[in-house]
Amino acid sequence: MRTDRNGNIWAWWGEPGTDAVVTGSHLDSVPGGGAFDGPLGVVSALAAVDALRAQDFTPIRPLAIVVFAEEEGGRFGVPCLGSRLMSGAIDPDVARRLTDPAGITFAEAAAEAGLDPARVGRDDEALAAVHTFVELHVEQGRGLIDLGAPVGVASSILAHGRWRFGFAGEGNHAGATLLGDRRDPMVPAAEMVLAARIAASEVDDGRATVGRIVPNPGGTNVIASTVDVWLDARAGDDASTREIVERVRAMAADAAERENCVLTVVEESYGDTVVFDSELRDQVSRALGGVPALPTGAGHDAGILAAHLSTAMLFVRNPTGISHAPEEFAEADDCQAGVTALATVLERLTG
Amino acid sequence: MRTDRNGNIWAWWGEPGTDAVVTGSHLDSVPGGGAFDGPLGVVSALAAVDALRAQDFTPIRPLAIVVFAEEEGGRFGVPCLGSRLMSGAIDPDVARRLTDPAGITFAEAAAEAGLDPARVGRDDEALAAVHTFVELHVEQGRGLIDLGAPVGVASSILAHGRWRFGFAGEGNHAGATLLGDRRDPMVPAAEMVLAARIAASEVDDGRATVGRIVPNPGGTNVIASTVDVWLDARAGDDASTREIVERVRAMAADAAERENCVLTVVEESYGDTVVFDSELRDQVSRALGGVPALPTGAGHDAGILAAHLSTAMLFVRNPTGISHAPEEFAEADDCQAGVTALATVLERLTG
Repeated sequence: MRTDRNGNIWAWWGEPGTDAVVTGSHLDSVPGGGAFDGPLGVVSALAAVDALRAQDFTPIRPLAIVVFAEEEGGRFGVPCLGSRLMSGAIDPDVARRLTDPAGITFAEAAAEAGLDPARVGRDDEALAAVHTFVELHVEQGRGLIDLGAPVGVASSILAHGRWRFGFAGEGNHAGATLLGDRRDPMVPAAEMVLAARIAASEVDDGRATVGRIVPNPGGTNVIASTVDVWLDARAGDDASTREIVERVRAMAADAAERENCVLTVVEESYGDTVVFDSELRDQVSRALGGVPALPTGAGHDAGILAAHLSTAMLFVRNPTGISHAPEEFAEADDCQAGVTALATVLERLTG
Repeated sequence: MRTDRNGNIWAWWGEPGTDAVVTGSHLDSVPGGGAFDGPLGVVSALAAVDALRAQDFTPIRPLAIVVFAEEEGGRFGVPCLGSRLMSGAIDPDVARRLTDPAGITFAEAAAEAGLDPARVGRDDEALAAVHTFVELHVEQGRGLIDLGAPVGVASSILAHGRWRFGFAGEGNHAGATLLGDRRDPMVPAAEMVLAARIAASEVDDGRATVGRIVPNPGGTNVIASTVDVWLDARAGDDASTREIVERVRAMAADAAERENCVLTVVEESYGDTVVFDSELRDQVSRALGGVPALPTGAGHDAGILAAHLSTAMLFVRNPTGISHAPEEFAEADDCQAGVTALATVLERLTG
């Protein structure tokens, strides 16, 4: 086992080479999240390797299990930070300057965790070692319920990103300030939340969410001086996703102007649509007796790495479709079906 | 000096009796607040006593300076908690169960601060000691600017209160959940923010503010499971204030129903309109050469105590009118005018 210079953890079966088959996922979660998003892929990878060893299988190609760092971006705002750094999808200077809600920079947190912050960034050696990456993940939707299948293979990931809308007004007293004298940034922030729903509904397969909003200073009897609102927007392609964001921005700018507030918008992360390698996808599906292929609205490290490597994903059925919440779940039988499927795929790819 | 059983601090000039004149204010502030709201009244009280002593004045009645605890309610949500407890305006059982954002109860915090939580509550001995209470405070509005006066006397306080609107929906994944499958409590929460502005504008002299909103769990890529929104509503009388709250509640309930969310509303605090003792108000104004009387939209310990004692307030001019923000200010000359005015009032009342 080793931790690479971006904080991703690798466990090797065989000597690292240039043609490894790698499986794994992540262990971090969203705030208030469930137990499956991430850990299921890591645990299933360990269980699949156990199953292969129990069959006295010996891989011809090296095989590794990886745990990617900060996949959810729950602390530093940028999802898939470990795989983005490793693959060069984020400038390491930008990453080092990211801050968590307590104001700690990623550079400081990386140093605290035993990494050298000066050495985070694109890792050609790590990339070159991997030939194929297969990520198993709990499904985050109802696709496999509707298809009646415990396991499926991913076809694509929606284009998606995160934007921080900052509204600046004038902090003041909630009781003593006449309505006409107010420059209250909470008002355009609320209009922006509603604009996000409208804009997403006007775009084919669009989704837009505000799950995080932070008024500053945040007192009950205080008109906020600033309000930060995070927009998560997704759609089938780049143009549609940009269209949602531009519509929200336009409505938010109008609302800010009416309240004499100032709006600034910062793109915190973005990833274009990922269409997984169709050859590998079909190979995996066939190896599993023709399991269905289905798209997902969720981002994954496999999506980041798809720009550099042949990648595939297996999904395990989620009986409610709910994810990023404590209700996120997979039945034990379906988890076992996932392990068996992953072992079969790893056997084919490394044998 | 002594701290009473509700955490209010008293400094006595002369022996405590049953006919004391008391002045003072509070030292706590709102999050992100200014330096004057509260401390100006305490510092000015000390300076006024110094000025009286420098004149070799000796009060016939006892004189005390008081610092009331938790006036802003910034930690436990209920404003004027120290004066409410002392005067019996809040049930001590309710107070003991109040929690701060970290989940610490008021009982725990009181014990940590050296109080006996079992003994917080109505303090008849403390109340009986006070004949008259005079609070000096920075003005939280533009009244004295418009009147061209450095100092004024309070006429009334708007009816005001705080209500927590809790919206409950279903936490889920921001990317994988179709718009039609969502029960996103952020959407009705945003509609409620806008409803507050509308409802306040429809009521004479109405004010309504959302300065605090907390989505749970609060992740960027997570549809919130619940959102709590605090409404601060005020108007000239009880009926108008209740009218604002009822209108907001009706609009919020409609919005919650459209999103298949559940709304609960809790009144966290309420204070009816306070009209200060007109005889004392006129006596104070005359003693100061006829300074103007003016109303305020802000709550004060003097407003809580007005139900039990003869109370008055002095306001000191604020050159921007801004309060509960770092821009809150009073010029040194105006602060000195406030000290001189307070010394004059204390001399008249105790001499």
